[in-house]
Order: sequence, then structure tokens, then C-alpha cells
Amino acid sequence: GASKPVCIQDFEQLAKESLTKNAWDYYSSGATDEQTLHDNCMAFKRYRLRPKVLNDVSCVDISTSVLGQKVDIPICIASTAMNKMADPCGEIAAAKAAASVGSGFMLSTWATTSIEEVATETGNSLKWMQLYIYKDREVTKQIVKRAEKCGFKGVFLTVDTPVLGQRYKDVKNHFSLPSNLKLANFEVHEQASGVKSSDNSGLSDYVNSMIDPSLQWSDVKWLKKITKMPVVLKGIVTSEMALKAVAHGVDGIVVSNHGARQLDGVPATIDALPEVVNAVNGRCEVYLDGGVRSGTDVLKAIALGAKAVFIGRPVLWGLAYNGEEGVRTVLSMLKDEFKNSLQLMGCRSIKELQEGQNLIVPEAYYLSRL
Amino acid sequence: GASKPVCIQDFEQLAKESLTKNAWDYYSSGATDEQTLHDNCMAFKRYRLRPKVLNDVSCVDISTSVLGQKVDIPICIASTAMNKMADPCGEIAAAKAAASVGSGFMLSTWATTSIEEVATETGNSLKWMQLYIYKDREVTKQIVKRAEKCGFKGVFLTVDTPVLGQRYKDVKNHFSLPSNLKLANFEVHEQASGVKSSDNSGLSDYVNSMIDPSLQWSDVKWLKKITKMPVVLKGIVTSEMALKAVAHGVDGIVVSNHGARQLDGVPATIDALPEVVNAVNGRCEVYLDGGVRSGTDVLKAIALGAKAVFIGRPVLWGLAYNGEEGVRTVLSMLKDEFKNSLQLMGCRSIKELQEGQNLIVPEAYYLSRL
Amino acid sequence: GASKPVCIQDFEQLAKESLTKNAWDYYSSGATDEQTLHDNCMAFKRYRLRPKVLNDVSCVDISTSVLGQKVDIPICIASTAMNKMADPCGEIAAAKAAASVGSGFMLSTWATTSIEEVATETGNSLKWMQLYIYKDREVTKQIVKRAEKCGFKGVFLTVDTPVLGQRYKDVKNHFSLPSNLKLANFEVHEQASGVKSSDNSGLSDYVNSMIDPSLQWSDVKWLKKITKMPVVLKGIVTSEMALKAVAHGVDGIVVSNHGARQLDGVPATIDALPEVVNAVNGRCEVYLDGGVRSGTDVLKAIALGAKAVFIGRPVLWGLAYNGEEGVRTVLSMLKDEFKNSLQLMGCRSIKELQEGQNLIVPEAYYLSRL
Amino acid sequence: GASKPVCIQDFEQLAKESLTKNAWDYYSSGATDEQTLHDNCMAFKRYRLRPKVLNDVSCVDISTSVLGQKVDIPICIASTAMNKMADPCGEIAAAKAAASVGSGFMLSTWATTSIEEVATETGNSLKWMQLYIYKDREVTKQIVKRAEKCGFKGVFLTVDTPVLGQRYKDVKNHFSLPSNLKLANFEVHEQASGVKSSDNSGLSDYVNSMIDPSLQWSDVKWLKKITKMPVVLKGIVTSEMALKAVAHGVDGIVVSNHGARQLDGVPATIDALPEVVNAVNGRCEVYLDGGVRSGTDVLKAIALGAKAVFIGRPVLWGLAYNGEEGVRTVLSMLKDEFKNSLQLMGCRSIKELQEGQNLIVPEAYYLSRL
Ligand SMILES: Cc1cc2nc3c(=O)[nH]c(=O)nc-3n(C[C@H](O)[C@H](O)[C@H](O)COP(=O)(O)O)c2cc1C
Ligand SMILES: Cc1cc2nc3c(=O)[nH]c(=O)nc-3n(C[C@H](O)[C@H](O)[C@H](O)COP(=O)(O)O)c2cc1C
Ligand SMILES: Cc1cc2nc3c(=O)[nH]c(=O)nc-3n(C[C@H](O)[C@H](O)[C@H](O)COP(=O)(O)O)c2cc1C
Ligand SMILES: Cc1cc2nc3c(=O)[nH]c(=O)nc-3n(C[C@H](O)[C@H](O)[C@H](O)COP(=O)(O)O)c2cc1C
Repeated sequence: GASKPVCIQDFEQLAKESLTKNAWDYYSSGATDEQTLHDNCMAFKRYRLRPKVLNDVSCVDISTSVLGQKVDIPICIASTAMNKMADPCGEIAAAKAAASVGSGFMLSTWATTSIEEVATETGNSLKWMQLYIYKDREVTKQIVKRAEKCGFKGVFLTVDTPVLGQRYKDVKNHFSLPSNLKLANFEVHEQASGVKSSDNSGLSDYVNSMIDPSLQWSDVKWLKKITKMPVVLKGIVTSEMALKAVAHGVDGIVVSNHGARQLDGVPATIDALPEVVNAVNGRCEVYLDGGVRSGTDVLKAIALGAKAVFIGRPVLWGLAYNGEEGVRTVLSMLKDEFKNSLQLMGCRSIKELQEGQNLIVPEAYYLSRL
Repeated sequence: GASKPVCIQDFEQLAKESLTKNAWDYYSSGATDEQTLHDNCMAFKRYRLRPKVLNDVSCVDISTSVLGQKVDIPICIASTAMNKMADPCGEIAAAKAAASVGSGFMLSTWATTSIEEVATETGNSLKWMQLYIYKDREVTKQIVKRAEKCGFKGVFLTVDTPVLGQRYKDVKNHFSLPSNLKLANFEVHEQASGVKSSDNSGLSDYVNSMIDPSLQWSDVKWLKKITKMPVVLKGIVTSEMALKAVAHGVDGIVVSNHGARQLDGVPATIDALPEVVNAVNGRCEVYLDGGVRSGTDVLKAIALGAKAVFIGRPVLWGLAYNGEEGVRTVLSMLKDEFKNSLQLMGCRSIKELQEGQNLIVPEAYYLSRL
Repeated sequence: GASKPVCIQDFEQLAKESLTKNAWDYYSSGATDEQTLHDNCMAFKRYRLRPKVLNDVSCVDISTSVLGQKVDIPICIASTAMNKMADPCGEIAAAKAAASVGSGFMLSTWATTSIEEVATETGNSLKWMQLYIYKDREVTKQIVKRAEKCGFKGVFLTVDTPVLGQRYKDVKNHFSLPSNLKLANFEVHEQASGVKSSDNSGLSDYVNSMIDPSLQWSDVKWLKKITKMPVVLKGIVTSEMALKAVAHGVDGIVVSNHGARQLDGVPATIDALPEVVNAVNGRCEVYLDGGVRSGTDVLKAIALGAKAVFIGRPVLWGLAYNGEEGVRTVLSMLKDEFKNSLQLMGCRSIKELQEGQNLIVPEAYYLSRL
Repeated sequence: GASKPVCIQDFEQLAKESLTKNAWDYYSSGATDEQTLHDNCMAFKRYRLRPKVLNDVSCVDISTSVLGQKVDIPICIASTAMNKMADPCGEIAAAKAAASVGSGFMLSTWATTSIEEVATETGNSLKWMQLYIYKDREVTKQIVKRAEKCGFKGVFLTVDTPVLGQRYKDVKNHFSLPSNLKLANFEVHEQASGVKSSDNSGLSDYVNSMIDPSLQWSDVKWLKKITKMPVVLKGIVTSEMALKAVAHGVDGIVVSNHGARQLDGVPATIDALPEVVNAVNGRCEVYLDGGVRSGTDVLKAIALGAKAVFIGRPVLWGLAYNGEEGVRTVLSMLKDEFKNSLQLMGCRSIKELQEGQNLIVPEAYYLSRL
């Protein structure tokens, strides 16, 4: 029966029951064999927590900042395309939910609500723009300018999608954006309504047509030139690429594998996080997304050096379950779990967690010991 | 059908069939994803035994001592709250069963039988008091004083519960102590009958209200001052915290993760035991609880340096199955299995087991070999 | 229902539904416990990809060469016996499919279509001859000569089959080549129609009777003497044997365990590949077959140093599903997946992939880290 | 349906269907949690074979010797108690089957056929006596003398059973030897017919009553004094105990954990074998039993240094399936599989297998590589 959800996995089940197959498969899929999809979640289980005890944890501070802006919780909303397939209020509902808990919201280039509409409905809440670079550089530039004008506080350039990863269910379903919806940041018909296909994944056809596969490091310089907003690269999982990002003067990196939807076989993001944090060595902010499903997942990512985490699918599940209220519940649940786990670690703040010695170790610490 | 149990897991199945959902879920739950719940048991399987052969094992001595008091078996009863949900005689039945096999009994602060009633019914059998420190320091001090007056031989201060861990099933069930029962160590209504909720885990609400989350190391000093009883810290899983405990002059440490009910993702207790034993280096006693389900589990913990082990859920299963007799059967079964495994290790005593070289190794000894 | 296949595993299911039990079991079996059969596929999952980002991947070149002959894709067809059990056009359909995508085809000594018939139907498309050495050295020599005369571009000597491996299902089924088919490269009745048995695997009886178990290194010298075609040894999985092959002046090595059909318990081919590549050190070409089921499998083998990969069972599944068109679909699917994964690795060619540093690592890189 | 078995696991299923629950559970059980029971088989899968190729394997010699006596195959029959529960001809059928394939047979002290009867029916075939040392040293000595008189070629002293391991199913079933059978090596009623119980495992009660738990190293000296037969210690799994055995001048060691029926949690025998072989360093023979279920299992044990392997349960399955013929089929099947795997390793004899470099490695060789 449909009883109240008590954990994030409950939302997944409820969403599955309420979404169309076209939407559910699109939201849930990972690339090809979906090994990384499962690994993103499983990998968190390969780390052990080593708590401090007998510290006063009556008052804990779980706030932090992202690109200089305060957030009440280190858990923000990642850009997911086409939210209106989950709920009629789509991106606006999600953005409002984020604002109501003092968190931030990342709008997808492929949102079913425009930058301006989201801005109007959410005032000066904390928002960032996720950017895909189109072959049409002018429309790309306009997206950046519009976001800046609407008070968005950063641009997250997605770097893991020169081409779309292969998702078998979308191919099987001939995934298409329902005809009553469109990619609302675009006016040109093909750019707004081109996510459809009769024999393939509609998004794959769209990306082949629109997205620029020649995206290169010089485009980062171009982006930094056309905006005052901080620039974050989203989709880096290696120390080598992190070092290049730092060399290009970015303000942040999201350790991300696009929710395991692009190249199957890349590391789980929690496994990739330590080498990126190590390589960056404080020279820019490092965030993580992918597989975050509980407060201890948040705790582990923060403990390993992430400034904040972003969540993708759980927000879509919240939307599908109960619109804005559903997303608020998801965020509150993760907040409460994170706070509880921080207290049980004997820490009063994120700072204490990150400065502790050996508060988190890989399971090899215990399993490989001789 | 309900046939006679021949192993500890049989008791689990029998208990599940006879308890209410409210009680079964409360007893069996671990925190959040329950990874550590399963790991507590699974981890024992990651150690290999390397027996001696052709030693005379016709007479084996499986006795030991805890805080200077002799026990006939190195297997004692850990504090579990609210035993009367399992059997009308609750804590008294369990304490009598322990006494009848020459073992010791740890009474929970949240017992459904008072210190005095248990003392009256069990005479001078070996008992210890498990302590939660309440915001109400006076009632806390009284618990300690009353236990001391009733001849309890030690206070086990639980240090892993500044706040309650999250247990999804209790939230779903709105876990409550049945109204005919109360926390019998308290007289004030809210302290005795406050384990209930209409939308959350009743125990979680109770803990938030009553338990002091500011619990800190100075409270250990306070505790040592108000009692002559030996003081043991229950709920340490790291060498760092073990060193602090030793520095505070405690008499013992229980390597414990509260039956995996507090912070999910901490190590299994058998994995944590070696570094604690190593750090303590004989300066206080070290015990283990969590996941002990067979004589070889007992053997492995003792072989790795524990003075004794404590069992939690198996006692509740014994109570649910057949009251005092059920608990006695559980203890006797573990005793016989332990004795049998000690003999098959070619050892005549706990001393021989602990002084042997390489009698127990991590599986890496075999699996990581090149 | 029978919907269009979107991944290689879909072909497997479709083939299973359309083949006779005799044929399906013969095609799908591995030796004895089939551990290596599963490991050939599972092992690919034990490698992690570490992509480059922000490289221009608008134009990628996935061509390479095999023994000096260009192939448009690094994915070729391995020799599988008795293709006509899958489709009436058997080997000719497969060879044509390979030609149509610019790939190469390896004809089995135990083909149900002769060298000459295949050559006639495929013109000068790229073909190689897989060779079993018979006790009858004259018929063996004739096979080599005929292949050379028909323009085949290499002989692949199978070295892992001095005797046939044991496949339980073939024994149970008394596997036999259907009586309307024969091994078309032979004229002598026993050599053409001897794959049958009343109480054993018909192929096992055939091999015991026909194949020379005294096959030794001097036979490699003999083979090099009787042909101008390049000589490749197929079925090497160790550095030691690779070094001997190089010492005997072969032109190539296929790291192969005969699709796990010979000796169960040998390494997965992807696990064996690195030490062979390392030992060979560029002195001959190294290919891989076994367990390749997706574009990322191809990518991993190439990244670890293979010049090209060969596929066995997926071709049979393609034949069973839809003859020549089915095989073409299989090859095109792998090509598209490989190209997509190469782009997502940020590489423009096989050369860039192989020259990259740390683009592929064993999972131990992440899981064994302390 | 009941079709002809093609592998050893087939015999297991057939036996399960034909034996009583009392007998099947007794034969199949391992101690307590049965972790080692599964590990004995699973562990073989953790070794990889690295074959030689292009060696002449047309003639292979799979013979060897045990305690100076030639055996045609390195696969002999281990002592299993109470064979007549599987087949009316019990031990005689098994011994005859062994003789018919040139193998050896180990008679259990707890056989349902006497030493003399077995000797009469099998002539001078190769047989050894497995010995349990009873509290009644005279009857023990007589068993040894009788075996020696009947031409048995060695005594295998079981050292892993000072007390019986706990087998839950036997406790549940109140395992008893059927009343029409008896332990035929004894005349005294309690010693012959005492395997029965009304509330426990009948064998456990018997062992408590009869077997000497004070068995010690001096008893090895005693045994060597009372017989001219070679003495082998059966049930050693560590280098330390192997060194003691060598120091006591034994002729052989069986690396064995009693089919995982004694102490659960000891290493799988194939995992224990290398350190025993290494410690013994050729000073006595080393055999292995436990989990051998295929020719490659035999191959791996031999490759790791065992002189021969012994099988227990597969013989009982053969007996249950088809008496003497069933056992012969089991032995022939293992022989054919072993020979086939030896040829596929490119080896002509056991000597070549054992002298090869790196022909067998632990999986860590591949999985832990960085
Ligand atoms: C349905 C869906 C749509 C997504 N759309 C976008 C997108 O438009 N732009 C982008 O940069 N990332 C996109 N992502 C990736 C997310 O930003 C994020 O990396 C990922 O969802 C995190 O993993 P999680 O879902 O396990 O939390 C999408 C992810 C999903 C699941
Ligand atoms: C139902 C239940 C109630 C418990 N109540 C308490 C308690 O009141 N105080 C405490 O210190 N530990 C408590 N524990 C933890 C136990 O003392 C012990 O650490 C744990 O049960 C050991 O794990 P095991 O159940 O696997 O044997 C409780 C455990 C369970 C399962
Ligand atoms: C049904 C079948 C028949 C095969 N016949 C031959 C053969 O005749 N000669 C040969 O060298 N290899 C033969 N092989 C092995 C293949 O050449 C190749 O090594 C193997 O199929 C690769 O593994 P894959 O099927 O997982 O792609 C055969 C494999 C299969 C599955
Ligand atoms: C049913 C059964 C009875 C056994 N009885 C004896 C015995 O009487 N004496 C003894 O030394 N070992 C005995 N064993 C152990 C075997 O000798 C041998 O160590 C074991 O069966 C090898 O493992 P396997 O069954 O996996 O091949 C017995 C084993 C089984 C399964």
C-alpha cells in the first residue's frame, strides 16, 4: 500500500508506481550495462565510519557555503532535465522546495521551465545554471546571459556529455518528451521540441543534432569571458582532469559521472572524490553528485572533502510523489539523517568532520589487514 | 512447524513468529540501511581458525572474570531495553537464567523492571547497571546509587547514544512501549511512560526529550566520582577513543556499536576489536558485543583479545520463545558450542587460546597471498 | 515478446528461443563448471575507465589494421564451428556481414561451408583461416594451401585444443551435427560427417579420432614453412607462452581461452591480456577474444593493448536471429557503442586511447587503496 | 527425471533423492554454520590455471604412489563412516570399485563392514585403515593389528576429532545408525550399536562416550610403536602442526578438515595446502581431502603439491546411486576429467605439473594487481 515514506528508497518505489514507463525509464536509466549506476550507491558501503564519542553534540551546525553563498544544509539540487514529466509544476516546485529549506537549486539547460519563469517564482533564492554548449554558440551565450541577469549565482558547465551516453531503455521506448511539454529555454522549434524519435532514443537524436561534440578546454576560457558568474565544471572523475580544471581557473568541480548515464565503467563518484580533492588541494571547491540516498552518504562525501553534495533522482522521485512538498520532504529527510549522523560521529560541524583524523576509511583498512 | 531449536538462528525464527510487529521490528532493527547490522554477523566469517591438534582437551576451563568477578562462561547478557515486550517476566527471567549458568546480567536503564525488583528476585547473582545519562542529572545519579546499593558490580556507561540512531521500521510503526508497561526505573510520568509517538518512533521522541546530547568526557570523571563501582564505557569502536578511555581511568571498554542500531557504516565489532585491544594493551578489560550468534563467534572474539562477550538479541529471542528457560537454553547452547570449539582448537582454557600464535587470522592471510 | 534487440544480450535471448536444444547448448556451453565462461564477461567489470574531458571528439577514427590489412572497426569475427546450425546460409552470411561493415572474418576448420564457397561468395573481402592440425597432416596442409589460394590473409593456428575440453551439456545431449550438414572442408566421410555419438559428445569423439594431441612447437615451424600467409597463434593466456610464440616468429597472438570451452579455471582473457601485451612488447600483434559483449568491453581490451578484438557467440546469436542482417546488426551495434565510448573517453582514435596514461585501471586502484 | 550423471554434482542430486533424510543429512552436513563446507568447494575457484601450450600430450601418465604403493590415478577413497546406509554392500562395494580402477581405499573405524570382511572380498587391493583412538586402548590396538594382519598398507590417524563437531541436522534428527546395521569393527555392544540418541545426535553421544579426548602427540609415538605400517596424520591444516608431525616422524599428512564436519571457520583445505607443503618440504607425503568435485579440483591440489587427493561424499553419492558401479563411475569420471585437464595444461605427467613454474596461482595474482 502507499504509506508515508520514511527513507529515500521509499520515494523511489512510490515514483515508479506513479510515472509513465517513458518517464520512469528515462529517469532511472544508467548507461549500457548500468554497472556504474549500481556502483554509485554501492560504493558508499565500502567506507567505514570511525566515530568520536563523548563530545558535546547538543548544538550542531550543518550549514556551509557554495561559491560564497550560504546554504543551511550541504545538500543541493542537481540539474535534471524535463522535470514536468514528474509533476506539472516541475522545476518551479523543486526550486521552491530547495529555497524553503535554505538549499540551492541547479536549473538544467533542458528544463521544461524557462530561466525567467523559475526566477520569477523563486525570487532571490539561491540558483545556479547548468549549461550544455550547443553548436549554436549564440543561443548558448544567451542562456548564460539570461541566467546571470536573473540573479543565478554560478554556471555549471557539463563536461561529460560531448555525445549522449547510451541508455538501452530509452532506445527501446523511443523516448520522447511528451508533446505538451517543451525545453523551455529555447524558442527555435527544433531546439525546444526536438526530443523525439521513431526508432531511437529521442534525446540521443536531439543531442547528436544540437550539442557540440568539439567542446574543448578553450571553451572554458570562452565561458569565463562571457560571464561574471563563477564557473564550475560538472563531470570530472580523475585527478588529471581536476588539475587541468584548476589550471584553467575554475571556481569549482562537481565530481560526477552524470548519474552513471554517460560512460559505464567509470568509478563511482565517492571512489573518485578523494583523488580529486587531493589534486585540487583547496584551490577550488569540490562537490559530489551520484548515488546519494541517505544522510550517511552525505556524511561520507563531506568527510572525504566535498564542500556539498547534489542530488538528482531523489528530487524527481519527490516531485513524482508529491510535487513541491515531496521535494521538501526528501531534502528534510536527508538533512535530518545527516545531522543525526554528524552527531553520532561526535562532530559539531562540517569543519570538525573534515578536520578529524581517520573519521572515515576505505573498508580495506579492515578487510586487507594482515 | 515449531520444533525444538538446535542453534541460535532457530530462536530468531521462533521469536519472529511469536512477537507483535511493534516488538519484533523494534528488537530486530538496525540503523538506516542496516549494513552494519548484517556486517556484525558476516564479519565473523572473515576470520579463519588455525587449530592445534593432539593436545589433551579432556578437561577444559571456560571460566573467566569480569571486573574481578568470576563467571563460569565468558558469555554474558547485554543490556536490552523493555524486555517485558518479549515475556511477562522480562528482565527478571533473563537475570535468573544468567545466574543459573554462572553468567552475569546487565540491566538496561530502560528496563521494564526496576533495579530493586531484579535485585530482590536474583539475590547476589552477578549484575551490572547500564547507564544512560539524562538531562536530569539527579535521576541519573539516583540510578547509579540504587544499583550500587543493590549490589550491582559495575556501571556500563553507554557512550554511543547522544541521540538515538534512526531505525526506519520504528518510524513506520510509530513504535511505542505498550501501555501496560513502563520504564520501571523511573517514577516521573514522562520519564516512565514517554516512549510513544503518533507520527515518529516513540523511542526517538523520548530520547530527544530525556537524554543529554551534551554528554562529554568530563561526565566520565563525574561518574567515577559518584560511585565506587567499576566504570565501563560501552560503545567504543576505535583505537583513538580506547586511548582516551584508558586515559580517563576506566575499568573496561565494551567494543560495541549498539547492535548496529546507532550509526550505520561503523565497523563490525569483531573488525574493531583488534585495534582496541592493541591500543588498550592490557590497561583495562575489553569486551565485545554485536552479532554473536554461535560458539565460534565467541571463540573468535576471545581469541582476538576480548575478556568476555555480551549478547543482546539472542536473549530477547530466548525470552520470546520460552521465558527464563528459553534464555537459559540460549546461554547453554552458546556455552556448549564454545566449549566444543575450544576443544577443537586444541586449547584447554581461554588463556591458552589467547596466548597461542596465529590461532586466528583474517581471511586476507589466505585470500591476499601471492 | 520478440522486440527489436537494443543490446548484444538481447540477441542472446532471441537466439536461445530460436535454436534447437542441441545447437543452443553446443553454442553456449563452457567447459565443466563454466567458471571461466562467466569470468570472461564478469572480468571486464573489474576495470575502471578514467576519461579525459574537454577534448574535441567531433571526428573519431576507429579503424585499425590486422596483419597489415585495414579494418574499419577493431571488431572482427572469430572462428566458430558449424554455423549452419544457426542459419542456412551459415558462414557465408557471417562473412558477408563482416565485409559489409569493413571488418574481417575468420573461417573455422570445422565450418559447414567450404573455403572455396566462402571465397566465391565474398570476393576479396578480408578473411583468415583458423586451423586445427589433424593427425592427417596432408589434409591439414591442403586446408592451408586452399585458404592461401583463395586469398585468405592469415592462418590462425588454434593451440588450446590438443584434446577437446569437457562440456557437460554436449555429453548429456549426445551432441551431433545434424545429418543434413557436414564439415565442408573435408571430403573423406569420417572427417566430414564424424561429429556424432550415441553416448558421448559427438564432437569429443570426433576430436579424439581426428585431432593430433601431439601438437608441439615444431609444428609452428612446419606451418610457417608451408605457407606465405602470416601465422597467428590462437589460445595463449600467459606471458611465458607469449614469449615462446615471439621466439618462434609468429605474426600475432590471440589472447583467448576458446570462449571458456577448453580448460575451466584459466584466467578471463581481459585479465590475461596485460601480461601478454607486456611480454610481447610490440614484437607481434596481440588480439583478444572471449566475453566481448559491448562497446566498453571492446574499449577496455583496446585500451589494454589489443590490436583488435574477435567475437564468437554474438555472431552465432546474430545468425540465429536474422542471418546475415542479424550479424551485421551485431557488428554495427558494437561499432556504435565502441565509437560512443571512445568519444566519452575524450579520445579521437585508438592511438590516443592506447597512448593515454591511466585511462584504464584495475578496480584494485580504487578498492585496495588505504 | 533421473538421467545418467555426467558430472560429480549430478551424483549429489541423485543421492539426495534416494537416501533417507536421516542418512542424507548425516552425509551432507558440515559443522554449525557450514561456512567451511561451502568454502572447501568454493576455494578451488579462487585459483587460476596458467597452461603451457604446444607440448605433445598424446601420452600422459597420471599414476603416482601413496606410501610407496603405486596407484593408477592420484584419486583415492577417504574414510567415511557407515557406508551401508548408502548401499547394502557398503564398504565392500566402494573398496572393489577403487581396486577396479587401480586406486586405494581407506576404511573407517566406524565402518559397517569389518576389516576382515573387506579384506576377504578385495584380496590384496590397496587399502589403508583410518583410526580413531578410543578410551579403550586395547580395542584400538586390536584394530591396528587386525588391519596390519589383513594386509592394509597404512594407518591414517584422525587427529581433528578429540570431540565430535556439532552438526545441527543430526541434532534435529536425533541421528541414529539404523538398527539393522552396526559398527562392524567392534564386538562389545555399546561400541558396535551405540550410535543412537533420543534427544541429540546419536554419533555425538557415541563419541563423547567412546572417543578419547585426551589424544596427544605421545599417542603418535605409541601408534608408531605398535605397528609396522606407515603412519599418516589426517586432519592437519596449519604449517605449525605439519612441522610437529614431521618432527614425530610420520610418513604422511592429509590436509583435511574432516569434510568441514568438525570446526567451522577453519580454512578450506586447498587454501591450507600450500603452507603445509611448504613446511613439510618433502620430508613426508602430503595429501588433501575436502571439496574435490571435478578433475580440475584434483589438478589444482596436485599442482599445489599434494601427492594424491582423497574423496569422501562423492563416493557415498556413487554408492547411493548405483552401488559398486556407481562408485566406479565416480572414480572414472574424476580420472577422465583429471587426465583431460592435465593435457590441456600441456603436461604429460604429475611430475611435469608439479615442477612447472606458475602453472597455478591464487586469483590475487590477477585481482590484486595494480
Ligand atoms: C533524469 C536525469 C536527467 C538529468 N539531466 C541532466 C541535465 O540535464 N544536465 C546535467 O548536467 N546533468 C543531468 N543529469 C545528471 C545530474 O545532474 C546528476 O549528475 C545526477 O542525477 C546525480 O546522480 P543521482 O541521480 O544518483 O543523484 C540528469 C540526471 C538524471 C537522473
Ligand atoms: C532491542 C534492543 C534494545 C537495546 N537496548 C539497549 C539499551 O537500553 N542500552 C544499551 O546500552 N544498549 C542497548 N542495546 C544494545 C545492546 O546492549 C547490545 O549492544 C547489542 O544488542 C549487541 O548486539 P546483538 O543484539 O547483535 O547481540 C539494545 C539492543 C537491542 C537489540
Ligand atoms: C560454438 C563455438 C564454436 C567454436 N568453434 C571454434 C573453432 O572451430 N575453432 C576455434 O579455434 N575456436 C572456436 N571457438 C572459439 C572462438 O573462436 C572464440 O575463441 C570464442 O568464441 C570467443 O568467445 P566469445 O564467444 O565469448 O566471443 C568456438 C566458440 C564457440 C562458442
Ligand atoms: C559422512 C561422512 C563420514 C565420515 N566419516 C569419517 C570417519 O569415519 N573417519 C574420518 O577420519 N573421516 C571421516 N569423514 C571425513 C572424510 O574422511 C573426509 O575427510 C571428507 O569426507 C572429505 O571431504 P569431501 O566429502 O568433501 O570429499 C567422513 C566424512 C563424511 C562426509
